[in-house]
Amino acid sequence: MGNADFERPHPVAIPPAKPFLKSLKSGLKETLFPDDPFRQFKNQSASRKFILGLQYFVPILEWAPRYTFAFFKADVIAGITIASLAVPQGISYANLANLPAIIGLYSSFVPPLVYAMLGSSRDLAVGTVAVASLLISSMLGKEVNPNEDPKHYVQLALTATFFAGVFQSALGLLRLGFIVDFLSHATIVGFMGGAATVVCLQQLKGILGLVHFTQGTDLVSVMRSVLSQTHQWRWESGALGCCFLFFLLLTRYCSKRKPCFFWINAMAPLTSVVLGSVLVYLTHAEKHGVQVIGHLKKGLNPPSVSDLAFGSPHLMTAIKTGIITGVIALAEGVAVGRSFAMFKNYHIDGNKEMIAFGMMNIAGSCTSCYLTTGPFSRTAVNFNAGCKTAVSNIVMATAVMITLLFLTPLFHYTPLVVLSSIIISAMLGLIDYEAAIHLWKVDKFDFFVCIGAYIGVVFGSVEIGLIIAVTISLLRMLLFVARPRTFLLGNIPNSMIYRSMDQYPTANSVPGILILQIDAPIYFANANYLRERISRWINEEEDRLKSTGGPTLQYVILDMSAIGSIDTSGISMLEEVKKNIDRKCLKLVLANPRSEVVKKLEKSKFIETVGQEWIYLTVGEAVSSCNFMLHTCKSNKASVQEFDAQENV
Amino acid sequence: MGNADFERPHPVAIPPAKPFLKSLKSGLKETLFPDDPFRQFKNQSASRKFILGLQYFVPILEWAPRYTFAFFKADVIAGITIASLAVPQGISYANLANLPAIIGLYSSFVPPLVYAMLGSSRDLAVGTVAVASLLISSMLGKEVNPNEDPKHYVQLALTATFFAGVFQSALGLLRLGFIVDFLSHATIVGFMGGAATVVCLQQLKGILGLVHFTQGTDLVSVMRSVLSQTHQWRWESGALGCCFLFFLLLTRYCSKRKPCFFWINAMAPLTSVVLGSVLVYLTHAEKHGVQVIGHLKKGLNPPSVSDLAFGSPHLMTAIKTGIITGVIALAEGVAVGRSFAMFKNYHIDGNKEMIAFGMMNIAGSCTSCYLTTGPFSRTAVNFNAGCKTAVSNIVMATAVMITLLFLTPLFHYTPLVVLSSIIISAMLGLIDYEAAIHLWKVDKFDFFVCIGAYIGVVFGSVEIGLIIAVTISLLRMLLFVARPRTFLLGNIPNSMIYRSMDQYPTANSVPGILILQIDAPIYFANANYLRERISRWINEEEDRLKSTGGPTLQYVILDMSAIGSIDTSGISMLEEVKKNIDRKCLKLVLANPRSEVVKKLEKSKFIETVGQEWIYLTVGEAVSSCNFMLHTCKSNKASVQEFDAQENV
Repeated sequence: MGNADFERPHPVAIPPAKPFLKSLKSGLKETLFPDDPFRQFKNQSASRKFILGLQYFVPILEWAPRYTFAFFKADVIAGITIASLAVPQGISYANLANLPAIIGLYSSFVPPLVYAMLGSSRDLAVGTVAVASLLISSMLGKEVNPNEDPKHYVQLALTATFFAGVFQSALGLLRLGFIVDFLSHATIVGFMGGAATVVCLQQLKGILGLVHFTQGTDLVSVMRSVLSQTHQWRWESGALGCCFLFFLLLTRYCSKRKPCFFWINAMAPLTSVVLGSVLVYLTHAEKHGVQVIGHLKKGLNPPSVSDLAFGSPHLMTAIKTGIITGVIALAEGVAVGRSFAMFKNYHIDGNKEMIAFGMMNIAGSCTSCYLTTGPFSRTAVNFNAGCKTAVSNIVMATAVMITLLFLTPLFHYTPLVVLSSIIISAMLGLIDYEAAIHLWKVDKFDFFVCIGAYIGVVFGSVEIGLIIAVTISLLRMLLFVARPRTFLLGNIPNSMIYRSMDQYPTANSVPGILILQIDAPIYFANANYLRERISRWINEEEDRLKSTGGPTLQYVILDMSAIGSIDTSGISMLEEVKKNIDRKCLKLVLANPRSEVVKKLEKSKFIETVGQEWIYLTVGEAVSSCNFMLHTCKSNKASVQEFDAQENV
Repeated sequence: MGNADFERPHPVAIPPAKPFLKSLKSGLKETLFPDDPFRQFKNQSASRKFILGLQYFVPILEWAPRYTFAFFKADVIAGITIASLAVPQGISYANLANLPAIIGLYSSFVPPLVYAMLGSSRDLAVGTVAVASLLISSMLGKEVNPNEDPKHYVQLALTATFFAGVFQSALGLLRLGFIVDFLSHATIVGFMGGAATVVCLQQLKGILGLVHFTQGTDLVSVMRSVLSQTHQWRWESGALGCCFLFFLLLTRYCSKRKPCFFWINAMAPLTSVVLGSVLVYLTHAEKHGVQVIGHLKKGLNPPSVSDLAFGSPHLMTAIKTGIITGVIALAEGVAVGRSFAMFKNYHIDGNKEMIAFGMMNIAGSCTSCYLTTGPFSRTAVNFNAGCKTAVSNIVMATAVMITLLFLTPLFHYTPLVVLSSIIISAMLGLIDYEAAIHLWKVDKFDFFVCIGAYIGVVFGSVEIGLIIAVTISLLRMLLFVARPRTFLLGNIPNSMIYRSMDQYPTANSVPGILILQIDAPIYFANANYLRERISRWINEEEDRLKSTGGPTLQYVILDMSAIGSIDTSGISMLEEVKKNIDRKCLKLVLANPRSEVVKKLEKSKFIETVGQEWIYLTVGEAVSSCNFMLHTCKSNKASVQEFDAQENV
């Protein structure tokens, strides 16, 4: 059954093998530098290269010369707006992290200045976030009780911030930013929703004016703690909290309806703080069960290098907390920066952003600040207020500095319950049930990832939720490779095109030829499965042909278009498939093997085994060649029979 | 730029959405029952179904009625041959596992009988294996010293065997056999080579006649232990060992050169044992530093159910040992069974084999046997000796039974050094350096997996080697998905075919149209990367066109043929790519989206956003449609310019 005389119009190319080091280098470049950051350095003089390099790592040098007065006006307005949000949020989240309120204010002073110099986003507003604050309190709180040993607790929080910064810059410097990508959209939706639920539950302490509260963050222990001390609930506190919560939600609703009123929403927290403080000062409610912030030290951030507790017995916990909070803060900050850059059509380099976040947190940990990132809410306000560059962060930092220098005594009477209301109203926006419904509609698997993260966070802990979600997501990817789909291809009528008969019910199978398509790279994890599955396809096709009395099976065409890669286990599998097919007296034909695959098949001599002449560029060409041979043989057979018949006569 | 009047010959089909439960069911079936084991039960009466079911789980019922006397003759010869190997190997490996020698003999009696009834391989010879023996001694030896508390140690080994059996049957019953597939070919080559090296190193104890020896298995501690007691080396023992090793290697070399002399190799170990015992008996060498086996109890396997130490404080170690040794034993046994089934062209059901192995080990653990599987060496001898069915296992068990009942006193004077030589000569065959060289040539990554496993086993421990290899293998799969390749497609001259310009240097790019192909499913792990990479492709193409002064870019065609799946993060990525392309005033065109992908794009309304009319069945059709419109517009523009020119005149 030779086909020497059959004309094959388009041969399959086997690319020449690259030297190992060259292919390793190009592989590493694609993996670690997909954005080709060195492109701009090409063909430049040494001094120009130095300036470009400096501008690369300190972006302010790049845009500051182009800064105009018009930009400045816009940035001042935006900066003051976010400062009005930063002060109450800073105090609230520090409270959530069980840290002194003043550390929340410190954290809105130094990190924004660092980010303004190193960051490449024009819209990101720097500040502390609720989820990381909660994580710090729950992870460190297990080791050191913040009420019994507050100094050590603060030291551990600063140390964790330091390690978060180190980890973040290391990820950026080593170009490992893609690790953040492993937190998928679905994971983040579920995780954020769960964390927001948990944070709201924690606020029951402030709203109900409770003094004792569980260290656990899960639903069960919080509800048990709340319900076991019903006699301690303070109605004054609760009433005040509900009023302010209502006020905050109302302003949010208004500004959502009319986006030009965004400033109502932005100013509402500061207004609540002012109103609440005045109310307490006038009514002396602090003596009737409404807890207040109390004394706040005047003055700028004290240095805290000597507070980094590298010798603490809980150092490992601090490192672990730093890494987990660092990754989560990065995921939020980078995603927020990217989304707003997309709106304004400029580019953000994820790895560079990570270095900026890292440096900001290292600097922060040395100046009494805890973990900061780019929170969504504050950045959105900044964007709506019309910020132009990172100067709005500098303006915010200046406003916070003035607060620290002169205005801290004003917060003495601020009731904690107002802070709780501010947190709850911010958190309710993070529970994105519409996104979860969308996930269910589009992709069930993503929905389970999302729900897994939510349930893990709410009923277990933040870490458990994360682990569940990341594990399910990775399993899905592994399952895709471990159980690739195989399709039967058929001919689309009136064409040379072959497509899956599942998707195109009008496609016709070709008599005597079985065309299979494999949907994934062939790796050790699926080699055995594919061998079984292919032999099952062949058996089923033979049974079908037998039962319908059609022509017997002669050719098996493997469409390799979708096989992106293969390893040695995969090659052995193909060799076994070939043997198996030979044993059934069928012929194996390959169609469109891709560069990576064909190179390895060549090296392992599989191309020789199959025969170069049995490898085609398209399924169409493979089929017409097989058909040609089928008919030649048939007519040969026919003429032989005719000849026999004549002989017999 | 409408294309209402352009005729599109082949529309892309969007398969109707399946109900959730139905698609879940078919997905589960493909994942867990890819071999469709229930096919034979279809359309059968209830009693027939019962018989078929019984035959499914106890294959001997299926083939016993067809057993003939000719088969029996062949099986008896093969059975006696493997028995002559089983006795010395059993004693040697029990010695390696630090278990009493008699347990090695027991283990060649009950398990082969169980396997003969339940197993579906016709060639597999059951017995203990060196690697699992080594693992038992190194993992359990850390917890209980076999010299100080031999009874407890034996109990733990039996308990580990029990859990190995339970785990193996559970994998089979739950259809999770694919877990074994995660030990890739490269992992097994490296792991086996490493384990063989370690086992050989352990034999230095026997060869040199040392009494004290390290509990560690790594190269460093073994060499330190050996070299620190040079004054204890016994030359008598060493000389005897080298002689027998030379004899064994010589016979192996002979039978390798002439396969018909396989029986020389098969008989050599028993011959060595007999010769060695006679030599020691005659020369009284046991009094001159040559250690001997000593007294072996006569009689069949005593029951050992009461020895299973479920209450031991080391239960967790026993379970861990059981699971690890169980998986490794399975991997070897199933692979060996499959390979020989391939030779003789019959089918083996991996999950059923796992149940058989599991039951054999559970039964073994209750009758004083330790872990058994289907070793490659013994199976190869069985195959060469012409076995026809599992009856050869029954013959072997009978021969071992006779040995246990009557011949054990004959082993009293067998020198341990002969056993060491037997182990070394068996192990040297497992170091497959040729396979490692082949891996380096064909697939560098697999080579690193292999070397990682080898170095991990030799310098760390067996578990470390396994963990390294499995981790590298999984990382490779994740990397494939996280960093998919993207290709620029060009037109193959004189055809409508579009292929990667990397692979086909003769392919020509189409002016004004950028054609990209993505090589992997689009998941959260690669969505960000792909967005960056696609935008870099577009920028580079625009720069190139600008520098060459060619026509401007108008269309971006995404060839989706190789995209097997997509998740919600991937869909968001495509939406962003679309926005980005729109902003550049280009047009996004999709070619050949596959069933799974097109369904999800439809559900998330992405198809609507792109426009159904911009989705084509092949790249060729997409290009000709784009070209048609490019020229229509150009001629429109040209006529407008002509008109303007006329006006001006």
